[in-house]
Amino acid sequence: MPTLKPRSNLWIECGGQVVLSKWRVRLLEAIQETGSINAAAERVGVSYHRAWEKLDEMEKGLGVQLVERQVGGARGGGTRLTATGREYVARFKRFERGFDDVITGHFEQAFGDR
Amino acid sequence: MPTLKPRSNLWIECGGQVVLSKWRVRLLEAIQETGSINAAAERVGVSYHRAWEKLDEMEKGLGVQLVERQVGGARGGGTRLTATGREYVARFKRFERGFDDVITGHFEQAFGDR
Repeated sequence: MPTLKPRSNLWIECGGQVVLSKWRVRLLEAIQETGSINAAAERVGVSYHRAWEKLDEMEKGLGVQLVERQVGGARGGGTRLTATGREYVARFKRFERGFDDVITGHFEQAFGDR
Repeated sequence: MPTLKPRSNLWIECGGQVVLSKWRVRLLEAIQETGSINAAAERVGVSYHRAWEKLDEMEKGLGVQLVERQVGGARGGGTRLTATGREYVARFKRFERGFDDVITGHFEQAFGDR
């Protein structure tokens, strides 16, 4: 009997447009951690152009500013999340928390006796 | 504040290959209801070729026969699900049951006070 695995994806739309998803939120987190859209894009495996495009889509869709450029300072500038950006990351992570367990539970119920 | 909507997708993989998903299961149900792969493909909005391709993928991935041709009879033949095919449809529907409520609940918790 082949081994089956449950898979899922979660995202948030606004007016039919994706504004938050697992990978978009990973991109935002990577910006916060690296201080750079370029490094963040590389970490999540997309081009700089695509990362910018998606950030723009998210900001326009949500009607908020998610990232801001920092000029100068000890680290010589860079990009970081705004307070709103950090808030949306936290909200999405709250949204998806515990889902994997729910999915595993449903899967076991439906396919466990196969 | 723009209106956000939670969205999700669920599927089952085997060896990295999708074997069951919402639309694939809708295709199987449509075959059962219409007695025809052609009519079923049209109902779920894919070409006959793609429907066949996906059926083949699912059967190979799961290592079972999901559909069978019926020859003759009052309705002049056609295609229907095997008992195994009906079983997988039922299992997948059990798997996804209640998910929308879970997602709505998580979404309200995470974004409801926005």
